[in-house]
Amino acid sequence: MSLKFNPAASELTAEEIATLKEMRIRCARRILLSTSLAASGHPGGSLSSLDMLLVAYGLINHDPADPRMAERDRMVESIGHISPGVYSVLAENGYFTEEDFLIGFRRTGSGFPGHVESIVPGVEWDTGNLGQGLSTAVGMAHAFKIQGRKNRVFCLMGDGEQQKGQIVEAIRHAVKYKLDNLTVLIDRNKLQICGSTEDIMPQCMQKLYGGLGFNAVVVKEGHDYQALYQAMREAYRNISGVPTVLVVKTVMGKGISFMENKAKYHGSPLPADMLADALTELGVDNDFAQWQERRKEPVSTATIMLPRADYPEIQPGEPIVYAADKKTDCRSGYGNALLGLAEANNTPGEPPVITGVSCDLEGSVKMGGFHKHSPEGYLELGIQEHHAAAAAGAMSCENMVTFFSTFGSFAVSEVYNQNRLNDFNHTNLKVVATHVGLDVGEDGPTHQCIDYLGLMKNYFRFSVFIPCDPNQTDRIIRYIATQPGNHFVGMGRSKTPTITKEDGSAFYDADYVVIPGRADWLRRGADATIITYGAVTPACMEARQILKDAGKSVGVLNMASLIPLDEQAVADAAALGPIVTVEDHHADTGLGASVALTLMDKGLSPKLRRLGVKQYGGSGSPADLYKQQGLDGASIAATVQELLG
Amino acid sequence: MSLKFNPAASELTAEEIATLKEMRIRCARRILLSTSLAASGHPGGSLSSLDMLLVAYGLINHDPADPRMAERDRMVESIGHISPGVYSVLAENGYFTEEDFLIGFRRTGSGFPGHVESIVPGVEWDTGNLGQGLSTAVGMAHAFKIQGRKNRVFCLMGDGEQQKGQIVEAIRHAVKYKLDNLTVLIDRNKLQICGSTEDIMPQCMQKLYGGLGFNAVVVKEGHDYQALYQAMREAYRNISGVPTVLVVKTVMGKGISFMENKAKYHGSPLPADMLADALTELGVDNDFAQWQERRKEPVSTATIMLPRADYPEIQPGEPIVYAADKKTDCRSGYGNALLGLAEANNTPGEPPVITGVSCDLEGSVKMGGFHKHSPEGYLELGIQEHHAAAAAGAMSCENMVTFFSTFGSFAVSEVYNQNRLNDFNHTNLKVVATHVGLDVGEDGPTHQCIDYLGLMKNYFRFSVFIPCDPNQTDRIIRYIATQPGNHFVGMGRSKTPTITKEDGSAFYDADYVVIPGRADWLRRGADATIITYGAVTPACMEARQILKDAGKSVGVLNMASLIPLDEQAVADAAALGPIVTVEDHHADTGLGASVALTLMDKGLSPKLRRLGVKQYGGSGSPADLYKQQGLDGASIAATVQELLG
Repeated sequence: MSLKFNPAASELTAEEIATLKEMRIRCARRILLSTSLAASGHPGGSLSSLDMLLVAYGLINHDPADPRMAERDRMVESIGHISPGVYSVLAENGYFTEEDFLIGFRRTGSGFPGHVESIVPGVEWDTGNLGQGLSTAVGMAHAFKIQGRKNRVFCLMGDGEQQKGQIVEAIRHAVKYKLDNLTVLIDRNKLQICGSTEDIMPQCMQKLYGGLGFNAVVVKEGHDYQALYQAMREAYRNISGVPTVLVVKTVMGKGISFMENKAKYHGSPLPADMLADALTELGVDNDFAQWQERRKEPVSTATIMLPRADYPEIQPGEPIVYAADKKTDCRSGYGNALLGLAEANNTPGEPPVITGVSCDLEGSVKMGGFHKHSPEGYLELGIQEHHAAAAAGAMSCENMVTFFSTFGSFAVSEVYNQNRLNDFNHTNLKVVATHVGLDVGEDGPTHQCIDYLGLMKNYFRFSVFIPCDPNQTDRIIRYIATQPGNHFVGMGRSKTPTITKEDGSAFYDADYVVIPGRADWLRRGADATIITYGAVTPACMEARQILKDAGKSVGVLNMASLIPLDEQAVADAAALGPIVTVEDHHADTGLGASVALTLMDKGLSPKLRRLGVKQYGGSGSPADLYKQQGLDGASIAATVQELLG
Repeated sequence: MSLKFNPAASELTAEEIATLKEMRIRCARRILLSTSLAASGHPGGSLSSLDMLLVAYGLINHDPADPRMAERDRMVESIGHISPGVYSVLAENGYFTEEDFLIGFRRTGSGFPGHVESIVPGVEWDTGNLGQGLSTAVGMAHAFKIQGRKNRVFCLMGDGEQQKGQIVEAIRHAVKYKLDNLTVLIDRNKLQICGSTEDIMPQCMQKLYGGLGFNAVVVKEGHDYQALYQAMREAYRNISGVPTVLVVKTVMGKGISFMENKAKYHGSPLPADMLADALTELGVDNDFAQWQERRKEPVSTATIMLPRADYPEIQPGEPIVYAADKKTDCRSGYGNALLGLAEANNTPGEPPVITGVSCDLEGSVKMGGFHKHSPEGYLELGIQEHHAAAAAGAMSCENMVTFFSTFGSFAVSEVYNQNRLNDFNHTNLKVVATHVGLDVGEDGPTHQCIDYLGLMKNYFRFSVFIPCDPNQTDRIIRYIATQPGNHFVGMGRSKTPTITKEDGSAFYDADYVVIPGRADWLRRGADATIITYGAVTPACMEARQILKDAGKSVGVLNMASLIPLDEQAVADAAALGPIVTVEDHHADTGLGASVALTLMDKGLSPKLRRLGVKQYGGSGSPADLYKQQGLDGASIAATVQELLG
């Protein structure tokens, strides 16, 4: 059943409290049953968080009949493992039946996975890796502030996960941007998997959040409904400009005498005999055996929610064509396109639709023009990339287009797992990384991202584009803005020649249309093909000229769309003769590897040589570094020549 | 010239201060010259940190004639970009000549890269990505405590990088383990790349460190040698059990009037005309043109230091042979081997040589036996994986063997960049990840690491082993303990059958010797080959049996050594007929991709089918998940059958 409080009331009525107590018994039963049925899962924290969840769902604005209604408040469970508690409370509120949950929990293909996922009606975000949910909640809360929406955000967290450093990054963001629509609930049961939080890594949460600028409130009686209601209500109505954390003192395994305060029950379900005792203690019938029987039925998929579909209609604006006779960095192409998108879509006086996030690199990633045009849409999150990537992912799901930009080493390598979680969540994030590859030059190996493809290939829902010049950059940036889903665009640091047609005009002119999975033949050739992309494209054009002067006809194929790959173009190249792949990337994990895979899958066996980065880069000029690794025009030409014999 | 203080003296003499002032002028000149010569680099922070560096090198125990002497104190520069300041001070102290530095700085192949690297005599650690150096320093300090060594550790940090969450993880570690041999120096110049730290992401460092348990001291006059000396001396002699941070108030660009307090000079060198003014202000000659000329000379490599070579002699102990008729999880194989290594190498009453680090997962990763045997060697670092990976890397360079264990999603995906930095630093880290692959089962996609190979392939110095059963696990763990360098071992969660020979005895018996890059033919076959590793090996053996029953002779090749790969075995398999790769890993980035690459590189073109994970895994039993993705015995057999026609 559902219970709806009136937040104007300063306290709960006796009837409401009585109802909560009844709901608690039913939910506790489901928590115990579901985990014992699955023979896995996390009953202890589910029981300690249960009262918070029950009160929260009575307080917040939500509608089981319309789980994605725009005005709903958000509940993000950073502790994804307390799914039994969450599903129990959602069932209680009518999101689905107890039957669906108990039969499906932790079964392949069902709608009730082991860590909370947004396929479950009422669940907002897929979580599981600890310490990440607050970033999500902060991203949502910030989006609502930008949009002037009244939605509130609650984030339920564990106390163990407070150890994670990403949390202080999220806290600082919330404080800096005055996100008073955010309430953090910490389930302070003092236990984590390996024992007492005070033994594992002691800390005072009130001091941590309070010291960083939150209004930090300790709720001493974390299973007292009146105390919970009063604290949560005050936070819910807070308009002070200061976000709230409630450190709620609870008991692991609350309500089952022999489970209380035992770390073991963090992740262990009860065996059948102990379950029987627990159900007796709750005063409910033991129908374990019946449910066990029912779990032999095939799983139902009826409750499964599809990914969120809202995405704003975006005008790409007028393409900017960079002259053929001038060098321009792709970064500037990005910055100008982003400004163009803001001009075409962000109406002055209205909430911005195009938003941008960076980490102390606004100038380097060329977001300055955008920042000036749409100040409310630009977030400076400091040197806090883990949080920034996660928060940007959450923002991108609130009917706005979010660009996250920093250097490749941070946007890709440092936040690999945060973007993995974004990918699980079907976010609409546009990750635009500058400073990828050896092109970074003198700053050396720590700043040279040579694994952007090698890493991004491990996701299933990110597209990857690496443009070769500012014109192609402009078109790709405008294109991805119009598209839902996750997209990655990478580019180097240096100014680069405009790629031209044979007639000397810009190859990527105003008429160029981006088609994912479509490569471009910059030049056709009869004897062999160089497949390339990004910063080394001019070197490949130079190699082609060297070979032409030596009487060889070599094509250059620009594979700017790397995921998806133009497999047909690879096959076409294979039909012509030898292939040399050239990239500013680890030689074994980038385009060369993708081409090898495509060829093997298609049963094609042309001669293939893969040029790329074969050792960590040095500190020096890009030209010197390229030469050192055989990626300059002359070396590329020599490699092709060798294959041609 | 070098200057050596007597730490027993409570203050500097007038002569010492006069000498420091002379040194400062020479170093400031080098900072300005080097960055202007390279036309890139970071003069501003180099000048604000300079006085701290000068005093620190007068205080700490170090010897330019023996840069790696065992008793040296350590100076870790977390702000790797202030290399001009560091190299200037090291040159002043006689580690190398000014000439080497000014000619080589930021040139390809030279010994003086843009961010500090340990190829430079006197530099302890390669840094560059901000917020990571404190973890390194904490790892070193903890190693010294374990070993009972008197060495002290200083960590020079920026104030902007304090935003990074990983820093609070490192702080908590230092406080929990009472690392009073650690002193953090924060260059509090209040500027970061994009402007004032107070605008970018405000915070109070004294409150942050102090609140978490450091002795936090503000040095108000950060360019006053007496004040610096007194604060640093006190920290240097600290034996209180509480680590120290000195928040040192400084001026960006200190000493050059027109550079002071300008964020621009964080990362911009002076052009020639302004350099001339700056040198005039310093009262030194302008020899910029002469050095420019000298930089046309080829770079010298004479000063380049080789990677640290110390690694303890390790006894592998007696192998444990798991019976053929019993299922055992590889995790237990790991835990038992680790305990065996401790028993063979850690002498009671002496500092442990085998050390282990985990993150609130001691039981799950089976480190409990080791913990009990060698309590001083076991570090429980809480849910703080970023810091833990970095600290473990640093420890592993202190003549001890360090195992870092947690679930794959954390040990690989979450800390990808931390291990990348470990790889730059030639650490001796043993990353042993449990819970990799779909074998994790019910905990679902966030906990299923299906990218361990796809990620690890992007490093250049990690080996990768994935054993197929507890016997092979035992041998691999013992083997890597005896080897310097970085090694990764991954394993699933479940109990798994012992792989046997045709005669039913354990395949990986006591005589099995691990040879990197050597695969094992579990069964020979004439018609086709299944190449596999890890948790799905039993399913491949089952597929083989199904095919045998159908009259086909199919070999099974266990590729437990994935980096390096046994390329000859792949070629041998290709000579026999079709190949099917089977793995509990993303199908496009794992073994299948490596085999495809090997075949293309060798010009071989057998039929190849790659079985693996083709979508994010669900939450259910491993058996169901494998079946869902075509990784069960029957599906594998069907795929081979299909290829055989």
